[in-house]
Parts: sequence; structure tokens; C-alpha cells
Amino acid sequence: MANSEFEYTRKFEQSDTLPPGNWIVVRIDGRGFSKFTKRYSFAKPNDKRAIDLMNAAAVETMRGLVDIAIAYGQSDEYSFVFHEDTNLFERRAYKLVTTVVSTFSVQYAIQWSKFFPDQPLTEPFPTFDGRPVLYPKVKFLRDYLSWRQADCHINNLYNTTFWAMVQKGGQSPTDAELELKGTLSADKNEILFSRFGINYNNEPEVFKKGTVVYRDLSCAEISADVSVDVNKPQSRSQADKERKKKQKASLVTEHVDIIKDTFWDQRPWILAGKGGRKLVE
Amino acid sequence: MANSEFEYTRKFEQSDTLPPGNWIVVRIDGRGFSKFTKRYSFAKPNDKRAIDLMNAAAVETMRGLVDIAIAYGQSDEYSFVFHEDTNLFERRAYKLVTTVVSTFSVQYAIQWSKFFPDQPLTEPFPTFDGRPVLYPKVKFLRDYLSWRQADCHINNLYNTTFWAMVQKGGQSPTDAELELKGTLSADKNEILFSRFGINYNNEPEVFKKGTVVYRDLSCAEISADVSVDVNKPQSRSQADKERKKKQKASLVTEHVDIIKDTFWDQRPWILAGKGGRKLVE
Amino acid sequence: MANSEFEYTRKFEQSDTLPPGNWIVVRIDGRGFSKFTKRYSFAKPNDKRAIDLMNAAAVETMRGLVDIAIAYGQSDEYSFVFHEDTNLFERRAYKLVTTVVSTFSVQYAIQWSKFFPDQPLTEPFPTFDGRPVLYPKVKFLRDYLSWRQADCHINNLYNTTFWAMVQKGGQSPTDAELELKGTLSADKNEILFSRFGINYNNEPEVFKKGTVVYRDLSCAEISADVSVDVNKPQSRSQADKERKKKQKASLVTEHVDIIKDTFWDQRPWILAGKGGRKLVE
Amino acid sequence: MANSEFEYTRKFEQSDTLPPGNWIVVRIDGRGFSKFTKRYSFAKPNDKRAIDLMNAAAVETMRGLVDIAIAYGQSDEYSFVFHEDTNLFERRAYKLVTTVVSTFSVQYAIQWSKFFPDQPLTEPFPTFDGRPVLYPKVKFLRDYLSWRQADCHINNLYNTTFWAMVQKGGQSPTDAELELKGTLSADKNEILFSRFGINYNNEPEVFKKGTVVYRDLSCAEISADVSVDVNKPQSRSQADKERKKKQKASLVTEHVDIIKDTFWDQRPWILAGKGGRKLVE
Repeated sequence: MANSEFEYTRKFEQSDTLPPGNWIVVRIDGRGFSKFTKRYSFAKPNDKRAIDLMNAAAVETMRGLVDIAIAYGQSDEYSFVFHEDTNLFERRAYKLVTTVVSTFSVQYAIQWSKFFPDQPLTEPFPTFDGRPVLYPKVKFLRDYLSWRQADCHINNLYNTTFWAMVQKGGQSPTDAELELKGTLSADKNEILFSRFGINYNNEPEVFKKGTVVYRDLSCAEISADVSVDVNKPQSRSQADKERKKKQKASLVTEHVDIIKDTFWDQRPWILAGKGGRKLVE
Repeated sequence: MANSEFEYTRKFEQSDTLPPGNWIVVRIDGRGFSKFTKRYSFAKPNDKRAIDLMNAAAVETMRGLVDIAIAYGQSDEYSFVFHEDTNLFERRAYKLVTTVVSTFSVQYAIQWSKFFPDQPLTEPFPTFDGRPVLYPKVKFLRDYLSWRQADCHINNLYNTTFWAMVQKGGQSPTDAELELKGTLSADKNEILFSRFGINYNNEPEVFKKGTVVYRDLSCAEISADVSVDVNKPQSRSQADKERKKKQKASLVTEHVDIIKDTFWDQRPWILAGKGGRKLVE
Repeated sequence: MANSEFEYTRKFEQSDTLPPGNWIVVRIDGRGFSKFTKRYSFAKPNDKRAIDLMNAAAVETMRGLVDIAIAYGQSDEYSFVFHEDTNLFERRAYKLVTTVVSTFSVQYAIQWSKFFPDQPLTEPFPTFDGRPVLYPKVKFLRDYLSWRQADCHINNLYNTTFWAMVQKGGQSPTDAELELKGTLSADKNEILFSRFGINYNNEPEVFKKGTVVYRDLSCAEISADVSVDVNKPQSRSQADKERKKKQKASLVTEHVDIIKDTFWDQRPWILAGKGGRKLVE
Repeated sequence: MANSEFEYTRKFEQSDTLPPGNWIVVRIDGRGFSKFTKRYSFAKPNDKRAIDLMNAAAVETMRGLVDIAIAYGQSDEYSFVFHEDTNLFERRAYKLVTTVVSTFSVQYAIQWSKFFPDQPLTEPFPTFDGRPVLYPKVKFLRDYLSWRQADCHINNLYNTTFWAMVQKGGQSPTDAELELKGTLSADKNEILFSRFGINYNNEPEVFKKGTVVYRDLSCAEISADVSVDVNKPQSRSQADKERKKKQKASLVTEHVDIIKDTFWDQRPWILAGKGGRKLVE
């Protein structure tokens, strides 16, 4: 029973190395979550416990993967952004994506009982799928994140209005849906305010903006190391030092605007290259 | 804040549809398991609880995914074989791979306490990565599975001998490794027998052969429906009926030879096409 | 000016190796040929000189590439089938496709004057694009070729009828098109026969069936070498010998049915594996 | 003989759309040109006729494809750079690559007699292969082009020295090769000057620098249209207007340094986006 006789089947594996110089977004989504959220009676329009659990899982996912520069989540989705200069797993796509998916899924399952102490998980358990998307420039990456945050706002305004109409206004879901069809943001704001006394602007930021997770390197001065020759690749010891800095850095979750420049201007280390290098663009 | 302004970033997503007419193997592997198994003091050369946990996770993974025709596992790896005629997730590669990885990972984490009741999981939790490999003919698929089972045998014979030398023979790991370098199977069998009175043939089948998981459709007579016109695609209702049969079928785990034809000849439904159709080859 | 400073840009090249065990079809199509054929006043519905030129270019393309098992052409398209066991260019997709496209294009341009002696080529010159398609089993490959031949028949019946109505019946193209809309084969046969006395069955086979090109190895007895151990890979000298046989073999062009089994049964060497090996299926 | 019965084989075609926001380089290479150049007794180290023919073919290739921003060639290779904002053939990789390869190959074959009037082409005819490489930023694209030009210089210095030693110094090729092994640029310059009175700096620029081809839009003022709102996509009529400008623009071939910034600073329209838009970087 020689091993070599069958080993040729290895040749059917295809290369999946992602090209350099691209930001790698791994977006994960809850599988069948509309059913799942009903089974566990998630609060509508937003269940704070569920969002806190998503965020807790995301923080732990980032902790072990220091090449993730930033993550953004809303509803049952999370986008993890590997820095364009990462060489983790030699940029092999399936390794990157499945490692994120597996880590996040396990964190979600294990931390569940912390956030839903009265509702033990039963089969079928919650799971997530994921996929990679490459962005060749910072502008496209930021526009991608803006897209997700804009999507969060649009959905949340809709859901907040819809559930107010149903829960407080006593309308049937079908009625509410019909009435909202084709309405603009202003219309929904008006419905919320005039019928239910809700000022949408005062809704919790976590619902309106979603959640961004990043490392607080404001004190690490990674981007201030002027002695660095940015044209040379980082040495091994420099890379190790930086890795440790990042591992020690605390992970921050915020519910703020990431569409405008302010967020990025104030946290320049998030997108900075290795050793605080300026990006090639 | 129009959504459409940023929605163009969707266009960076690439198609990942796998071509028809190929068997899709999703192989998952434990990440950093040599460290993980030390942390939890897994028995050497094989930890029965750990293998039982892998198999339990595999069974539950298959339960929810009826298009998986068969799975084979050994050590910290498992191969799930989607039938070549599957259209699950429109054969999108990342959906298929991440769904398997997420489901298996969560099952492993949640079922852990059943198999290791005295050792609660602590961070970092066990995770798995995965990748797809396509096999265009049954022969290649079977050779792939044979490769994994031959690999199981080779590793197990080596490990059984190595750990006997260390645990029973009192040799240092370095010594044992040196002595085993370049030895053939016969040599290892001889060491086991003459020094430790171990007849390798009597070792448990689960260690020597690994584990194969499949649906027991022996009574479902899927392959005996002679009224089926195999040249026509299955109707929706036929497909639903078959799906239900598969969902109800019990999942079997066995530790048997899958290299020779016997296993396959006796369970013809495993590789049979939809509605018992003969495969195109 | 060190070369190495810029050589890193090589890393942006992606692997394009096609998986083993698949038939590789390279299909080429004339670019903008409806315009091109008008410019050179090609006869309608079929221009025999143009078809002969396509076939001559295909024959020369196959001559230099012995791993092409068979080719089929009609109108301004040609499909070249690399045998599933080819290892030409290590199965790199772009090498395979561009070599076929470049060779065919040059042959077409250079042989033009032989077939159109009175019409010298002028800018813009005729060019061809191409793409690969993989077929994992013989049945799918044959169905692909059947699709192209069925397409040839359908188009030719339509074009023959349409141009008879225009050229002989004096109808305007718009009228003819309108009348033919929604007609079945039988209707077109009837129009041809009743109005123009044309029996479609008597039309030239080259127009009705297109052209198939293959090597005549009927005397080479490649498939009769019973001493060959088909489980072993071919030796280098065997492979060289077979290559020479193929290079010497005459290339045949025929206009016959390739949908039914007869064609293939009578020429078993076309799809036979290396050294007459039976295919893995 | 219904077409639909076989049409399913279409589903085996895989998507090959290249992602947006990347420069697309199509590099072509002469196939087996060391043999080909011997057959036609190309002058060594450089055959001016052959280089002129390559350049003539490149110019005609660019003429028909206005989305090619620039091309660079040396020896038997040419790199065609499609602008990152091109949407030609919906960015389908095989369409782009094979169109370039086919056009260039045909041009080379047809224009051959202009440059080699005394040596008619005979079988096997010269052909080219090609492949795409994506560059996600201008800097990487320019480094790629710098790599090719540095490669041109290194090869030409070597070849000039080698052939001087053989043709003028009477050394055997083996001797010359051995002596040159491990030498630096300075050594080769010294050999050329001290033994053969050749100052490498005075060698023709076309041999030392290769050839760059671009459209002369210096008068077209594409980059000066300040009224353009660069945040809006180009309108159809604007795009048509620009296309016509480019089609009318004369194609320039130059043998100049493209590694330093000067070349690019003086011809800003080459890399400018649609309508003179500033690039997203």
C-alpha cells in the first residue's frame, strides 16, 4: 500500500494566492439568520445582546490576527480588512477566509451563553459563511466600508420605522410595508416623529452607525518612527517588534462615522504600512 | 448619503462558481493542533475522545448538508465530498467551503464538553481551515480518498511504534526518531512485536483506518427505481422526495477499508447520481 | 540600475495551470467577421473559399500541436480539443490559448492569398479571439462538439432558406426575416422545396455538417499495443515514439456526423489516452 | 436534433472578468524565437530590421485598441498596457489577451516582407504567446516597465560584449561565455572599450533602451479640461469624443528612459484617467 500511488491526486489542488498590493476584505454573514433570530426571539428592530455578541466575537477574531487592520460590523455581517501588505498564510485565499470564519463562528457559539444566559443554544447552531473581496486602492476600500455603513443607516431607519408602526402603531406588517414602499428618508423621519414622538437622531449610535473595531496604537507611535527607511523592506526583528506592539494594543469598538475623513485622519496608524510606512499609491 | 454612491464597490467581487461535472472535496484541517493537543494533554499516539469528537462533529456537519455524499477523517483532518451533481449554493466555492468549516468548527466547540467533560475549553479555541479540490472523475476521487487512508495507515504505524519506544521502551523522542528514520513498514511491525509484544494488526480499526461517514440508504432503494428516465433531469418533486429520504436516513460511521472496491460495491447509492442515475463517465 | 529592484513586480503574475483530467477545448472566433465578410463580399449563405481557408488554417494549427486530438469548425469559429492527458506548456491556460490563436491567425493571414487570389488583404486585417473551456468527461466533450454541429445545422438551414428567399425569391431581407420568425425546421425545408426546388438534404455536406479535422492513425495501431501496462505512466522513449507517429500521420478533414457514435467507434484512437491507454472514466 | 439538448455544455465556461481598478498588462513573447532568428540569420547582437518590424506591429496593434495607454518592447517581447479604467470587452481576460496576440501576430506576419524583402516567410511561421498581469497601482505598473527596460539594458550590454568577443575578438562562444560569467557592468564596459574601442554609451538608443509607443496627445489637451467634474462618470458623448481624439492622435515610438520621472511628467496624458481625470490613488 504505497502512499505514492495515490499521491498524484494532490495535483488537482489549484493555487489560490491573492495578488499583492490589494486590501483583502473578508466579509462574513450569518447563515439563515432571519429564521435563527425568530427562533431566539431577538428584539426588533435591534437586539442589543445579539449585537454585543457579534462585536465580542469580532474583537476576539481580530485579537489573534494582527494583520487585520480594521473590522466593521452591522446586523449579522462583519467585514474584516487584512492590510494590503499582509503576507499571512502567503496570502492564500482559503486559509485567510476560513480562518476568519472558523474563529468568528466558534467565538459566537462559545460566547453565546454570556449574552443570552437564559437561552441555551440548540441545534441547528448558528453558522457563518464568508468570502474575500480585493480592493486595489485605499479609496475603494474606504468606499466599500462607507457602503456597508450607509447600508446600516438605510436599513436601520427603515426597520426602526417599520417596527414602530407595527409595535406601537398597531399596524399589520403588510400594512406597514405597503405604506413605507417608495418613501424617502425624510418621510420615515416624519412618521417616526409625528406618530411616535421618536427623533431618529436620538436613536443609539450602535444601531445607526454599526460598529468599527481597531487597535488603539495612538501611543505606540508606529507612524512616527522617522528613522525608518521606507524604501527598504522591514527586517525580521522590526516586524516581530511591531507584531508584539499590535498584540499588546487594546482593541477598541466604536459606533462612529467612518464615511467622512475625520475618523481616518485621527487614527493614521490604521491604514499605515509596515513600520509606519506611507502607502504606495 | 445615497447608497448608490458607494455601491459600485460591489463590482470588485469575483465569480467563484465551480464548474459542473466535478466532485467537490472540502478538506478541513485543525489549525495549530500540535500545540492544541499538548495543551489538552491528548493521549499518544491516539486520543480516542478526540477522534470521537471529530467524528461527532463530522456527522452533524453531514446531517445538515445532504449533498455531501461521503466524508472521511483521520487525525485532525476531515474530507467532505459533495456529489458531482450538487447544485448547492449554485456551486459557489466560498459558500460551500465556509459553510462546512463554520458548521464543523461550531460542532467541535460545542460538543467538546461531551467528550472532554473535565477540561473546559479556554482561549485560544480550536479552529479549522478548509479548501476545495475538484475531482473530474470517480476514479480520481477514490484515489484521493485512498491517499488519505493510506496516509492514515502510514502515520499510525509510525506513531504507534514511536510512542511504544518512548512510553514503553523508555527511549528519548530523539533516539526513537533517529532509529525509525528510513525504516520500512516491516521493520516497524517487527519492532512493535519483538520489543513490545504488539501485533499491529490487532490495533483498533479506528486508528488504522480512520473513519468514513455516509448515509445508510440500503433500504431506501434509491438506486432501484427503474422507472426513472435517467436522461431527463430530476423533477422538483422527485428532488424534494429524495432530499427527504436522505435527511431521514441514519448516518453511519465505520472504520473500514475504502481503498478496495468492496466498500463501494456494497454501498452503490453513495456515488449514485440523482434519482439513482448512473454517473456520466 | 539593479534589475532586482524592480523584479518584485513578477510576483503579480497569477498561476493559470489548468487542472488535470479535463479535456481542454480552445475555441476561436473571428473578430468582427460580419463586417469583414461584407468588405470582401463573401458569397451568401456560404463562401466555399472562406471555409476552405478556415480549414487549411486549422490543419496547419493542428500539425504543430500534436496534443490536439481533434478539431471542429463551422462558420468563423473553430474548436481545438487538447487531449485530457496533455501536459503541453504544463497545461498553462494562456500559453495554450494564445499559441492556438496566434498560429491560426497567422495561417489565416498568410494563406489568404491562396484562397482569395484576387483580393489582397487590407487593413484592418482579420483576427481571432479565443478562450478555454474544460470538460471533465468524454460525454461532456462529445456533447459540446454535438452542440457546435447542431448549431451549424440550425444556422445553415436558416441561412440557406433566408438567402434563397432574398436572392431567388426577391424578398427584402426584412421580409424574409419576418416570415422565418418562429418557423420550425420542417417549415424551412418546405419553403426551400416548394418555392425554390431545393432539397436541403442535397446541400453540400461541408455546409450542413461543418468540418472535423483529425490525425489518421488507423494504420498506426496505437490502440493495439497490448503489451503496454496501462497502469504505468508512459516512458519518455515511448512518448517520443508516439509523438513522431502523430507528427507523421496525415491530417484528415471530413464533413460527417460527429453526434452519433459511429464516427467515434470507427476512429478509436482519437480519444484514446497515451500509448492507446483506455481513458479513466 | 434539438440544439437545447447539448447547449448545457455552455455552463462549463468560467467567468474571466478582470477586477476593476487595476492596470492590465498584456505581455507577448515570440515562440521559439532563438531557433527562428537563426533560421533567418538575424544580425547579432541586434537585428535592426527585426526590431523595426516588432515596433511596426506594435504600433498597428495599438492603433485599433485605443484603451492601450502605452506599450514597451525589447528583443522579441512587447508589453501592452490597458488603462486601469478600460472597460473593453467588459475586461474579459481572454478577449483582451487573445485580441492583442492575434493582432500583433498577423501584423508581424504580413509586414514581414516590408522589413525582410529578400527572405520570404516559410513554415513554421513566427507566432507569439501572451498573458495578462494586473497592477493595482501606478507605482507597480511603472516598476514593471522599469523592470523590462532594466532587463533590456542588462541583456544588451551582455550581448554587445559577447558578440564583440566572438565576432571581432575571434573567441569561441564557449570561451566568451566563460569569461563573462560573474562580470559586472563595469567589467563589460571595460572589455568593450579596451579591446574593441567601443564606448557602450554611444551604442544606438533603440538597442540600449528598447522602444516605447504612445499616443501624442500633447495638443489634445485632454488633461486640461478643467470644466470636467471628475467625480462623475464620463458621459457617452464625452467618451466617444475622447475615443475619436485618440484614434486621430499620431502614434509615437521613442527609445528613451522610462524609469525616471521625466518621461511621465512630460506626457501626463498617458496615465491620465478618462476625460483627463486624476487617478484614484
